[in-house]
Amino acid sequence: MAGKDNMAAWLYGVDDLRVQPHHQRLDQPLQANEVRVQVGALGICGSDVHYLKHMRIGDFVVNEPMIIGHESAGMITEIGPGVKHLKVGDRVAMEPGIPCRCCHLCKEGVYNLCEEMEFFATPPVHGSLANFVVHPADFCFPLPDGMTLEEGAMCEPVSVGIHACKRSGVRPGTLLAVLGAGPIGLVTLLVAKAFGATSIVITDISDERLTVAKALGATACINVANLTTEETCKRITEALGGRKPHVTADCCGFTSSMAAALAVTASGGKVCLIGMGHGEMTLPLTASAAREVDILGVFRYRNAYPLAIDLISKRHIDVQPLITNRFNLVGGFSQEVIKEGFEVSAKGRNAIKADAGKSA
Amino acid sequence: MAGKDNMAAWLYGVDDLRVQPHHQRLDQPLQANEVRVQVGALGICGSDVHYLKHMRIGDFVVNEPMIIGHESAGMITEIGPGVKHLKVGDRVAMEPGIPCRCCHLCKEGVYNLCEEMEFFATPPVHGSLANFVVHPADFCFPLPDGMTLEEGAMCEPVSVGIHACKRSGVRPGTLLAVLGAGPIGLVTLLVAKAFGATSIVITDISDERLTVAKALGATACINVANLTTEETCKRITEALGGRKPHVTADCCGFTSSMAAALAVTASGGKVCLIGMGHGEMTLPLTASAAREVDILGVFRYRNAYPLAIDLISKRHIDVQPLITNRFNLVGGFSQEVIKEGFEVSAKGRNAIKADAGKSA
Amino acid sequence: MAGKDNMAAWLYGVDDLRVQPHHQRLDQPLQANEVRVQVGALGICGSDVHYLKHMRIGDFVVNEPMIIGHESAGMITEIGPGVKHLKVGDRVAMEPGIPCRCCHLCKEGVYNLCEEMEFFATPPVHGSLANFVVHPADFCFPLPDGMTLEEGAMCEPVSVGIHACKRSGVRPGTLLAVLGAGPIGLVTLLVAKAFGATSIVITDISDERLTVAKALGATACINVANLTTEETCKRITEALGGRKPHVTADCCGFTSSMAAALAVTASGGKVCLIGMGHGEMTLPLTASAAREVDILGVFRYRNAYPLAIDLISKRHIDVQPLITNRFNLVGGFSQEVIKEGFEVSAKGRNAIKADAGKSA
Amino acid sequence: MAGKDNMAAWLYGVDDLRVQPHHQRLDQPLQANEVRVQVGALGICGSDVHYLKHMRIGDFVVNEPMIIGHESAGMITEIGPGVKHLKVGDRVAMEPGIPCRCCHLCKEGVYNLCEEMEFFATPPVHGSLANFVVHPADFCFPLPDGMTLEEGAMCEPVSVGIHACKRSGVRPGTLLAVLGAGPIGLVTLLVAKAFGATSIVITDISDERLTVAKALGATACINVANLTTEETCKRITEALGGRKPHVTADCCGFTSSMAAALAVTASGGKVCLIGMGHGEMTLPLTASAAREVDILGVFRYRNAYPLAIDLISKRHIDVQPLITNRFNLVGGFSQEVIKEGFEVSAKGRNAIKADAGKSA
Repeated sequence: MAGKDNMAAWLYGVDDLRVQPHHQRLDQPLQANEVRVQVGALGICGSDVHYLKHMRIGDFVVNEPMIIGHESAGMITEIGPGVKHLKVGDRVAMEPGIPCRCCHLCKEGVYNLCEEMEFFATPPVHGSLANFVVHPADFCFPLPDGMTLEEGAMCEPVSVGIHACKRSGVRPGTLLAVLGAGPIGLVTLLVAKAFGATSIVITDISDERLTVAKALGATACINVANLTTEETCKRITEALGGRKPHVTADCCGFTSSMAAALAVTASGGKVCLIGMGHGEMTLPLTASAAREVDILGVFRYRNAYPLAIDLISKRHIDVQPLITNRFNLVGGFSQEVIKEGFEVSAKGRNAIKADAGKSA
Repeated sequence: MAGKDNMAAWLYGVDDLRVQPHHQRLDQPLQANEVRVQVGALGICGSDVHYLKHMRIGDFVVNEPMIIGHESAGMITEIGPGVKHLKVGDRVAMEPGIPCRCCHLCKEGVYNLCEEMEFFATPPVHGSLANFVVHPADFCFPLPDGMTLEEGAMCEPVSVGIHACKRSGVRPGTLLAVLGAGPIGLVTLLVAKAFGATSIVITDISDERLTVAKALGATACINVANLTTEETCKRITEALGGRKPHVTADCCGFTSSMAAALAVTASGGKVCLIGMGHGEMTLPLTASAAREVDILGVFRYRNAYPLAIDLISKRHIDVQPLITNRFNLVGGFSQEVIKEGFEVSAKGRNAIKADAGKSA
Repeated sequence: MAGKDNMAAWLYGVDDLRVQPHHQRLDQPLQANEVRVQVGALGICGSDVHYLKHMRIGDFVVNEPMIIGHESAGMITEIGPGVKHLKVGDRVAMEPGIPCRCCHLCKEGVYNLCEEMEFFATPPVHGSLANFVVHPADFCFPLPDGMTLEEGAMCEPVSVGIHACKRSGVRPGTLLAVLGAGPIGLVTLLVAKAFGATSIVITDISDERLTVAKALGATACINVANLTTEETCKRITEALGGRKPHVTADCCGFTSSMAAALAVTASGGKVCLIGMGHGEMTLPLTASAAREVDILGVFRYRNAYPLAIDLISKRHIDVQPLITNRFNLVGGFSQEVIKEGFEVSAKGRNAIKADAGKSA
Repeated sequence: MAGKDNMAAWLYGVDDLRVQPHHQRLDQPLQANEVRVQVGALGICGSDVHYLKHMRIGDFVVNEPMIIGHESAGMITEIGPGVKHLKVGDRVAMEPGIPCRCCHLCKEGVYNLCEEMEFFATPPVHGSLANFVVHPADFCFPLPDGMTLEEGAMCEPVSVGIHACKRSGVRPGTLLAVLGAGPIGLVTLLVAKAFGATSIVITDISDERLTVAKALGATACINVANLTTEETCKRITEALGGRKPHVTADCCGFTSSMAAALAVTASGGKVCLIGMGHGEMTLPLTASAAREVDILGVFRYRNAYPLAIDLISKRHIDVQPLITNRFNLVGGFSQEVIKEGFEVSAKGRNAIKADAGKSA
């Protein structure tokens, strides 16, 4: 009988989230390089809510009941054989994806593209909204004193911003446009600032979101709700002192945002496509290709957690403003509280980061 | 009165090409770093024909009579002040674009994107189908003994292939798909082979073109005339032994070719968009972005002529098969012969490289 | 007769600096792309003093009287034909080196390595310690409101730091060791911070210099005066929390500093050799090569001035602490004052940046 | 009792090589991702001989009896749980180093620098000169039909050449100097040609080695036995038509070769330090740094075996000339034959690649 000492939030169907015992028993022995982590903080992100509401994202379909949650941090309660750099009591952020380590992509360092990736709460892999999870030691990163578990859980979205900035080469002197002021747009803004970018324009259709972006240090905020592509480009260029951005991070992934991104980016610049709004887009691709504006995909992240911890713990990035609501998700672990957390996240049109659960 | 000793082929209107005196007189003194070149070979390319038939390409419109032609080589007949590395009698290939040398793009080495570029036969800049042209010395590259002027003229399209292979990092081990077996597809194939690629699949809708591609060393040739995107991808993958290409060079620029390029390219790979077939395309961009398949634009070339000469002169690339017809364009310089040359180029549906004029 | 309205500081021999009329007359017409600049601030750097004391640096020998000075800023008083982005009255920083713009290095964007470079006060090219100098417009960079000419002159050393950080890929997460807390070490420190580095250890043999470094934001300062290579490495590693630096910037160029740099840098890391202390060094090169610790040369800078201006004007870098003495160099332009300025610079063992002249 | 069905060549002391049973029994069960390989070909390389003669290389000391040999290929006789891409009977080349897969270097794709690397015959790790070895499946690469086990064993040195060419960016247009025509110099030559280099000068002090290099396609061969550094540089430059090499691969690692490498390499070029001849070198490092000639270390290789197999199997590289002697090493597995093989390798002053054992 699986113990009640390790409860988990199982997704059974649309809007059907049940707190039930985890299939992992706490007395199950750990393998080499494994640790057991008592989850202490967990963030709810758009993709979690998407699974709750649609039971799928793209080709990933929830066919069997699946434990949800993937932005998490906690405390080591047990270490497996051979684990050296961690000990019981360490507080860690958990990078949620475990690659195969053996394919050519893993060996070349681009493990985020590994085809055998096992990623928390991407079906059929279970997530981390549970009392305890077992995880590879090398994907658990110790948090320095003074950095909270909540901040540890925020390493996940911050890592997306880090990956985008690394891929597109953001550094001092980079003129940057960020399209979309949702969670990913905001972490991209924060990370770009930490990477030394001094001119960052951000756009959105919500003044509330833009107000947050302004507070987080955007150079200029533009509400594009009623603007044509041409007007959007004009406004972005004006905000950059008459210059075009070297890098445009499209955190929406809509036809309208990509149209603006391709048109506004400077010759020889880069468009980072991070958002996944539209499947199909109709775009004048050859015009931007003729200016060698490259389009770079950004999928999750790789080798980013240590830097996320460094930036947050040294206060180069402040993630607090991204956390809009708090629930006692993983402390009491009540089905009602968890459902409420997800509902608030789902409704929160203006929510930035709906939730980071905190243990009592 | 401008002399008849320097005739040129002027484009006056659609299908209206007239041999008339060049506005540059031969006794006009040369400036520092300039040389005078007696044109000895000139290739006619798709863009030349396009101007003849439409008086425009995209935003570039022929508003005033313009001398046509841009793939050219010749012999130095005079050198201006300060020219050291060239002397009268040298045979040279002329790189057709002169950048401003002062903007940040020029200083950063990406001069092909210079906004003040003056490029042969791109309005309002005159081209090189003339007896003589004046050109900057440093954009004239000496041809070694044994390399013909005709081959010198072919450095222009070859440079496009070089730029594509450099941008996308083609090297030994790169699995490559080339979509389109027209002139640019074929030079990309030839250059990729010279860069060490051992597996190159090429597609087209013309068996005749594919036959040429096969003769030039393509690993596999696929006629995609009646194939869906899915079938095209399947065939390409099969031809690569079950693996997906690391690099796909889209030398068509059609929605159908880009759809195949995005779908077939391996995760973490690159799509080079070289062709300019369609202005707008409807594509599932987020799916490929989620596999970090990047889209790289390729516009002309930079710093490529020396390598083009090296590869051709050392017979790592044989451009002869690309030359399908020869006319006495620049020897006798007859309006009739030039018109015939352009007409053959225009008609030649199966033509690869319609023409490289040769002096008598 | 050259006018007394354009005086300059001519170096005639060791310690023989004479204020005499410039050979450039103010009524000499400007060429295309040229501007005339009234010099308003000029910094004296180690190389200037070196020429004064030795009449040579390496292979560069002062054989003819030469105007000295190369870190300068001023106001546009006249513009030549075709100059568009500048106008009379603009305040500009002058990048001191003018490359040939035509060799393959210039065209590839690495113009700092151009063999025909004409660089202020590198013989036989004259410098900028004069009332007026003529300079190419595209190497004059406008200063925004609020940025002083003095700060404009400081763009020169800051650009060296920028180039080092760009070459070695400093960014957030980079653990950095800077060896030497002289002017170049300090600008490297300042720039690395602006590039997002959060852990920067700096070494020197002078506590006074290290005190300045500490004030400028170094994470840790180590006086290595009495330390062996092994001890130096141990101390640097300790200061980085037990980790080795990814990048080590050797701003001394001594055998001792390079020995420490090669030993302490992490496997796969980079050593930037910026300082030029010793001509010959005896080092265990194969040991570091077997850890793929690369050695990167840094020579001046390229494409760095715009970023230097951006960082200084936006107060991401504060150059004031680097300026230790001020003289009325270019205002009154008195031989005595200029000599005094150089003498103070030469003596100043602890001087950081001996001097930035300021116009009255 | 360990079986006589798996004999191995144990190194007990200087010149003390004994054929004795392997400690691995053939009935020992395989772990996940492991395969058992019947060794069919093994090359003897300089480092193997060095251990036989000195019991150490640098800090690596043979303190306990160690099985020798690391360039090997063979046939799969058994597969462990979860192995999918290999089956019994497959012929494979074995990449000899197994990294930890968990440290940041492994995750970043630079696993050759992993500090926990277990590499065949690098103490205290045992090598592969045995009847059978157990190896991770993902470090066993299937050989296509038509590629021999002997060629499979040669993938090891070829991979070093691949790594050097990838690190230094060799491609068409690269002017290359290779210093040293021993095994590593020759594989670098062969690989550089496969990477498209058209101008490759090679130096050595042995005419016999240079004759081999010439036969393998070197553009020019220079015997530097009696040349000064200056003369060596002059000769290399002449051989490249008056131009300096962009890349110089120092396959000796002597002070004299590095002095030539630093002096002769073009500004902005790269010196690859591959050879390990001298521990300490006295060199004018600042002069080359001032021309931004970078020094890149090359340690073994990473992600190179698939390309080595591709190049050899497609006959872009012919390794036969590198194999100078053959012994029945792994067929009969006689102590006398193995000793003879090592002795011939040790004596062979002119030997290129002393030995590739072949099974009967």
